[in-house]
Amino acid sequence: MLGLMQDWPLLIPKIIDHAAKQHGTREVVTRSVEGPITRTDYATIRSRALKVAQRLTREGIRAGDRIATLAWNTARHLESWYGITGAGAIYHTVNPRLFPEQIVWIVNHAEDRMVLVDLTFVPLLEAIAARLPSVERYIVLTDTAHMPKTTLKNAVAYEDWIAEADGDFRWLELDERSAAGLCYTSGTTGDPKGVLYSHRSNVLHALAASQIDCLAISANTSILPIVPLFHANSWSIAFSAPMAGAKMVMPGPKLDGASVYELLEAEQVTCTAGVPTVWAMLLQYIEKEQKTFSTLKRLIVGGSAAPRAMIEAFEKRYGVEVIHAWGMTEMSPLGTVCSVKPVVSGLKGEALYDLKVKQGFTPFLIEMKITDDDGKELPWDGKTFGRLKVAGPAVVKAYYRGEGSVLDEEGFFDTGDVATIDSHGYMAITDRSKDVIKSGGEWISSIDLENIACGHPDVAEAAVIGIRHPKWDERPLLVVVQKPERTVDKADLLAFLSSRIAKWWLPDDVQIVSEIPHTATGKINKVRLREQFVDYRLPTAV
Amino acid sequence: MLGLMQDWPLLIPKIIDHAAKQHGTREVVTRSVEGPITRTDYATIRSRALKVAQRLTREGIRAGDRIATLAWNTARHLESWYGITGAGAIYHTVNPRLFPEQIVWIVNHAEDRMVLVDLTFVPLLEAIAARLPSVERYIVLTDTAHMPKTTLKNAVAYEDWIAEADGDFRWLELDERSAAGLCYTSGTTGDPKGVLYSHRSNVLHALAASQIDCLAISANTSILPIVPLFHANSWSIAFSAPMAGAKMVMPGPKLDGASVYELLEAEQVTCTAGVPTVWAMLLQYIEKEQKTFSTLKRLIVGGSAAPRAMIEAFEKRYGVEVIHAWGMTEMSPLGTVCSVKPVVSGLKGEALYDLKVKQGFTPFLIEMKITDDDGKELPWDGKTFGRLKVAGPAVVKAYYRGEGSVLDEEGFFDTGDVATIDSHGYMAITDRSKDVIKSGGEWISSIDLENIACGHPDVAEAAVIGIRHPKWDERPLLVVVQKPERTVDKADLLAFLSSRIAKWWLPDDVQIVSEIPHTATGKINKVRLREQFVDYRLPTAV
Repeated sequence: MLGLMQDWPLLIPKIIDHAAKQHGTREVVTRSVEGPITRTDYATIRSRALKVAQRLTREGIRAGDRIATLAWNTARHLESWYGITGAGAIYHTVNPRLFPEQIVWIVNHAEDRMVLVDLTFVPLLEAIAARLPSVERYIVLTDTAHMPKTTLKNAVAYEDWIAEADGDFRWLELDERSAAGLCYTSGTTGDPKGVLYSHRSNVLHALAASQIDCLAISANTSILPIVPLFHANSWSIAFSAPMAGAKMVMPGPKLDGASVYELLEAEQVTCTAGVPTVWAMLLQYIEKEQKTFSTLKRLIVGGSAAPRAMIEAFEKRYGVEVIHAWGMTEMSPLGTVCSVKPVVSGLKGEALYDLKVKQGFTPFLIEMKITDDDGKELPWDGKTFGRLKVAGPAVVKAYYRGEGSVLDEEGFFDTGDVATIDSHGYMAITDRSKDVIKSGGEWISSIDLENIACGHPDVAEAAVIGIRHPKWDERPLLVVVQKPERTVDKADLLAFLSSRIAKWWLPDDVQIVSEIPHTATGKINKVRLREQFVDYRLPTAV
Repeated sequence: MLGLMQDWPLLIPKIIDHAAKQHGTREVVTRSVEGPITRTDYATIRSRALKVAQRLTREGIRAGDRIATLAWNTARHLESWYGITGAGAIYHTVNPRLFPEQIVWIVNHAEDRMVLVDLTFVPLLEAIAARLPSVERYIVLTDTAHMPKTTLKNAVAYEDWIAEADGDFRWLELDERSAAGLCYTSGTTGDPKGVLYSHRSNVLHALAASQIDCLAISANTSILPIVPLFHANSWSIAFSAPMAGAKMVMPGPKLDGASVYELLEAEQVTCTAGVPTVWAMLLQYIEKEQKTFSTLKRLIVGGSAAPRAMIEAFEKRYGVEVIHAWGMTEMSPLGTVCSVKPVVSGLKGEALYDLKVKQGFTPFLIEMKITDDDGKELPWDGKTFGRLKVAGPAVVKAYYRGEGSVLDEEGFFDTGDVATIDSHGYMAITDRSKDVIKSGGEWISSIDLENIACGHPDVAEAAVIGIRHPKWDERPLLVVVQKPERTVDKADLLAFLSSRIAKWWLPDDVQIVSEIPHTATGKINKVRLREQFVDYRLPTAV
């Protein structure tokens, strides 16, 4: 027997409808790509999104068509998403920091019909446009005055383009499971993989994300998403902020410490979200300039693990609560958030920061488990680590034009991370599963070893990889770069490590190199590193 | 094109699964029907709910079957809902305060197969059980020691009943639109109407309800729902509290000021929710006993309009923020919540309380509009009033075994209320649409007139009804009860009114009566009142 409640599909444009009705005058402030600070509101954003939808429809864009965006966080970029999804099309966010070859691959794989592009990236696209046959038109996110001369096909300034529409449009009525967004993951190996969000998944994810123990977004929040819209829906803020009627402060292209600080203060921002690199820049700036925060209360940090010293600096010196979060493109992206539950609220000092460096616990709508290689569930004891697997309505089941389901028999997606979960439900990432060292049936975290090695006064950078071993399958090799004018003594370094780890975790050897290879996003490139050591034999492998 | 996110249905038992995993030791405290305070937690509640589901299934209960509950707010009542819905059945909450005849009608209409009943209501059921042929078994929510001798068919003590199950059960896999809950509205006219909630509607409603600008429920909340589980899902708290991992404090049968106050303090309650009558009792108690609140921060008031003096008393004298809310059984039930948006955050003193007596604004997932009798939308200007209509995934589209859709062409449900909505989106109920007086095409609020008349020093109670008028269709008649030892002078009372309202709102006559009829729930019974004045003719009707 079915219930008798309304058939009211969870569609993305309903978010901006709600924002326009209930929070119509709430501001969206942008540091524009052209330079000046611009101000708009949700009612205006909705009326312009209607024009985008109308314009797309007139140009023959139909339900399911892909529209790429290469753009910073701005009000125009935001409204374009509501317009695109309202026309039934799919916003496909392209990370402009990718190599041009990757962008060509991704746009062709997605078969994007149009590209919305910020001024910044026009030259980048001009250089590759000849190899993007599916693209019929380029919309430059600017006005007539700033429109550059360009070779891009059928190029038009966004403001001119939407000026031709009157906004007399009704959002398409769609199945809530319809595709709405597309974002490719850029792994270190293999081709990028497309994650195809639905209207339903984005709406549900935003409802979960705005909860108090997640991003805690309300009508009274002023939020500055530094995390880009092209980075997995800016961690849902593109949806959860309008849903709650929060003020949005969009940083545009300027993410340096001074520019971010200026916006935080001028726009009375209460919450901001981004990756550790950005916070390191901000921290450096405020320390140097001896500034303080007058309105900022919460800082969400994710994308990669937040250093403990950074968390402590913001909390102790500046009174800003730091919330560590974890997720991935495949999860829309939020997975866990490290809010403080009552069961651990008594923690003080070091113990509190032992907790805060963990990635946190799942909100409702996300399930997680850790398993061994055979899929057997492992205990939540804070020590045992295993493959981290997740399930939920905003988690992928398959990749776009991929090879079918990527789920296990219980419907869980393998994150590729290795993690512990403690008895209170707090998860901590220990390693990537392809990087963990499998020694005699037990797992050793390469990341833990690297972090400890970096604490040695002579070490500038450290990387740990597994090397084949006849008895133990794999054993850890520690690769280090020396600090300028320092010399690493292998025995001393191993002694330093052995006082801090279990004996069987101790690397079998230390190799000193002049440089460790990195990926485009600055992470250690372990694939390359393993290639460099492909012929290396451990001294213990006899 | 459909998205590629997981098919993860929104099912109620997933809420208690999440609570047990992530907030397993979080307490649920009950003032039991037997007397003592009892303590349990979400992990235990889930394991017991599994036993309930297993037991129901063994006794032949199948998906879609209805199980009635006549019970106070207790942990047992709560866990039974998760067990019932986990077995695919439907919890049917019966309001034990209804007349026995109404209970007979409702249980027969629902064709309940079992009844879970608190000790308090065993005698009530014994008196009517012979007329409840669909009921196969009665489960008394108690243990062996407290089990009474009873004539109820196949009666068993709940603790004995679930002790026979080992909890080795998997929740039924259901379509998320499956029926999960049933609650009848008890109108003043006609038969009760059954609202059939689905798993989806209850889960979505809980996600909306827990948002900061609604109930604001987090893992750190300790919430005392005085609003009964049989009163439209206790305003979602039965779902939103476990979803967030909030501590629940269940008041059982004792709702007097002293008992409620004792629990608020002993259990460090931060938020509580209930109808104005309960808060009046609490206020009276703390004023008399000169108490204060040491942990209570927020008090949610709904069910009927909260008197301004009550709101001011809690906020000004006791530092407890009062949040006015409005909803109805047909809305799961939350419709609007009167949180303070930034656009009105500058309001102070009288102007702030002018806002706080309004019913508030809609969260995402609820749409509202006001229309005239022809369905034409009316402006949000805070003055124009019209029929209040709502839409959303947790709003009814039809009644159980009713006559099909109750929605207008745009999919909106007519609440039966008349309201204004101001330019900031705040809704204020002006009247019931059947009570509003339609004079010459314009509407006059009976409630506004009653409230003003009650401010006159000689008036104990006032009611306004519309009387047929040859020229204006209807004109208002004011019916009053005098205060003891006071005499109402008609001319003086009308003069009092005329200085406070538009001229054309002035009642055409005043009638003094010794008593005004009331409904079972204490509201003015205007149906009866109109019957009493059926032969009355207005002096102006010439």
